Amino acid sequence: MDIKINLERLKSDIEELAQIGQDPRGGISRPSFSKSDLEAREWLKEKICQAGLCFRQDGAGNMFGRLGGEGRAVLVGSHIDTVINGGKFDGSAGVLAGLECLRRINEEKLRLAKPLELVSFTDEEGNLVGDFLGSRAFAGLLNREELERGITSFGRPLQEILAGTEFTLESILRAKEERPEVEAFLELHIEQGAVLENESIPIGIVEKIAGKNYRWCSFVGKPDHSGTTPLELRHDAFLATADFALKGTQLVATRHYGSMITIGRVTVQPGSFSVVPGQVDFSLDFRSASSEILEVLEKELLALAEDIASTRGLSFFSRVVDKTEPVKIPPRITEILQEECRKLGYPFLMMTSGAGHDAQIVSLIADSGMIFIPCLDGISHSPQEMIDWGDLEKGANLLLRALIRLAS
Amino acid sequence: MDIKINLERLKSDIEELAQIGQDPRGGISRPSFSKSDLEAREWLKEKICQAGLCFRQDGAGNMFGRLGGEGRAVLVGSHIDTVINGGKFDGSAGVLAGLECLRRINEEKLRLAKPLELVSFTDEEGNLVGDFLGSRAFAGLLNREELERGITSFGRPLQEILAGTEFTLESILRAKEERPEVEAFLELHIEQGAVLENESIPIGIVEKIAGKNYRWCSFVGKPDHSGTTPLELRHDAFLATADFALKGTQLVATRHYGSMITIGRVTVQPGSFSVVPGQVDFSLDFRSASSEILEVLEKELLALAEDIASTRGLSFFSRVVDKTEPVKIPPRITEILQEECRKLGYPFLMMTSGAGHDAQIVSLIADSGMIFIPCLDGISHSPQEMIDWGDLEKGANLLLRALIRLAS
Repeated sequence: MDIKINLERLKSDIEELAQIGQDPRGGISRPSFSKSDLEAREWLKEKICQAGLCFRQDGAGNMFGRLGGEGRAVLVGSHIDTVINGGKFDGSAGVLAGLECLRRINEEKLRLAKPLELVSFTDEEGNLVGDFLGSRAFAGLLNREELERGITSFGRPLQEILAGTEFTLESILRAKEERPEVEAFLELHIEQGAVLENESIPIGIVEKIAGKNYRWCSFVGKPDHSGTTPLELRHDAFLATADFALKGTQLVATRHYGSMITIGRVTVQPGSFSVVPGQVDFSLDFRSASSEILEVLEKELLALAEDIASTRGLSFFSRVVDKTEPVKIPPRITEILQEECRKLGYPFLMMTSGAGHDAQIVSLIADSGMIFIPCLDGISHSPQEMIDWGDLEKGANLLLRALIRLAS
Repeated sequence: MDIKINLERLKSDIEELAQIGQDPRGGISRPSFSKSDLEAREWLKEKICQAGLCFRQDGAGNMFGRLGGEGRAVLVGSHIDTVINGGKFDGSAGVLAGLECLRRINEEKLRLAKPLELVSFTDEEGNLVGDFLGSRAFAGLLNREELERGITSFGRPLQEILAGTEFTLESILRAKEERPEVEAFLELHIEQGAVLENESIPIGIVEKIAGKNYRWCSFVGKPDHSGTTPLELRHDAFLATADFALKGTQLVATRHYGSMITIGRVTVQPGSFSVVPGQVDFSLDFRSASSEILEVLEKELLALAEDIASTRGLSFFSRVVDKTEPVKIPPRITEILQEECRKLGYPFLMMTSGAGHDAQIVSLIADSGMIFIPCLDGISHSPQEMIDWGDLEKGANLLLRALIRLAS
């Protein structure tokens, strides 16, 4: 059937939502449970009802709009929360494209075998206590301790933030009991990389989602006077970190090409001009689409750090902050996407997603798939995030066709 | 003459002063013009008067105690302000040893050709707007702009801090007009390094004070998603900084041994686990006892940074924060110190001071010299700062003999 989405309507929805949470310092700042996010939730609920979908919300704040009756459903969606100074497409494009798809199916009065349900997951960006709070609650992957322990990026504990909402730690933990049976889940998302743009291809069909390993690490040496301490007697924690950063990057680049390693957050103590750094704490983010390589990387990087510490007379410590396994998208999903994409006549590329997504979490409980569309220069998490509307139209049309296939 | 200091009295003075500004988190926190520092100033003024010296204070808060009449005087002293969580000897040992020397000369009713004057300089540690504020005011090296521009380590502008004192920007700038003629200046100080301790020698006679170059530098690259951006497409400002830190250190260690280089303060932006660092700002501190090497180092390090920036596709910026030239102690000073040290029978070592001191500033307007005593493990700027009282006794005796020589 030649059903297509209404691009003007989808574009209008996206621009409307983008007005909520505009940050004077640029872009959109709409972290979960902020005032802007609560406003956006009201807006989305209104849109869901206007579309003729049956609205519900679970104890973790995940929002749903169902088409068709109860039972095992095909889910479609993403998230509407943003990072600080983020863009208007990351997450929102997926939720609103999904909404538009269900609107069209409803308008055309298609009778499908299974119900469809729009979903907008809470806190995909991890501004509260860690990435994918909503989808992890949905999948039953949370524990009370991490909810109690986390200090949110608002600087206050989760319980305090929740006090302004209808949610509690208990309701978040109970969300998994409210979960319906899930036939499949599809998520449309901007690529957040520059591959599709470089190749001038409008559609990416994700076949793998990289796993990641987040660690918080420290080199501990000795603070010393920068004027009086000979270089050879120092135990400089910054030089150790520098050594590790360069050798670790070289290790990944030469032995595990395609995998990623990043040191993004670094604090140096005591942090004075004239004191040799006695301690450096830093984040370590490494990723691979292969479980085996992820394991090997962990061993090799930790061994490298210990070796550098030993050579330089320092100590090295690290702890796991987060680990997610790589995900292989089920063939039945990628096959449906490839077939419908060919029928629509759109060029496509099979891809690995280097970024984590709600789909990665939901894949642990149901077959999940992702459609990528290009974004300008690969830029995301930035006011400069931008897409080509024609690409979004194609991606949403593919989403629509694939949803119909899955629900038939 | 066999005049010696009274160690018990000097020790008692040091322990008494150490009670002022005790920090619950350890050590002594007595930055200039803090409540503790104002208390310490009252204490010192009292001691100066009790010693029979003639007290005065200049517009920069430098405190003086004169013995003998007006005219070209031999100065002795150091500073009583401390860093946060500092020790009880850094600066204080020099002021109180000087006080004890003048007390002894007064008690013995020695008639010397020139007057002697104790001095305690304001803010040697640079908690206000930069190192050596008091001695630089004394030497006439300050300008209004740096006083107005600086944000003190209290987080408030200098003018605000001064509001609680009898001093103003104007009075600080006018201090140089209140300066008497200076015949010479001697400063006793803990080594803040471990050379004397390692050599088991109680006295260091400083023959050179290293010059230093402080710069604030930045590598500016491109923030990128850590999951989706291939390593070879990144412009990672932290890897550039790491590269510069290691190569710069190697350059100094191999080509300019004896010189120092330190990166002590580093800030990484945006500072998120999953974002490739787009900008890193860092301090650069390099020092040498040779002017020529200091100049060569500056050229070579800046060229190295530009080269790394160019190779990695980033930009490099830097600005001078402070520059002090190396100082050669005048032979007539070192000779007097060597002779008196031999007469006293104390072993001594000729040394370069890697740390900056008030003596370095005063040397620009008068012959200045320094006596070092060992400190435990070379530790300073720390609650663990410790000396051997026997070494202090020797240092103070040498100071006494040298002052008498200079004032004769």
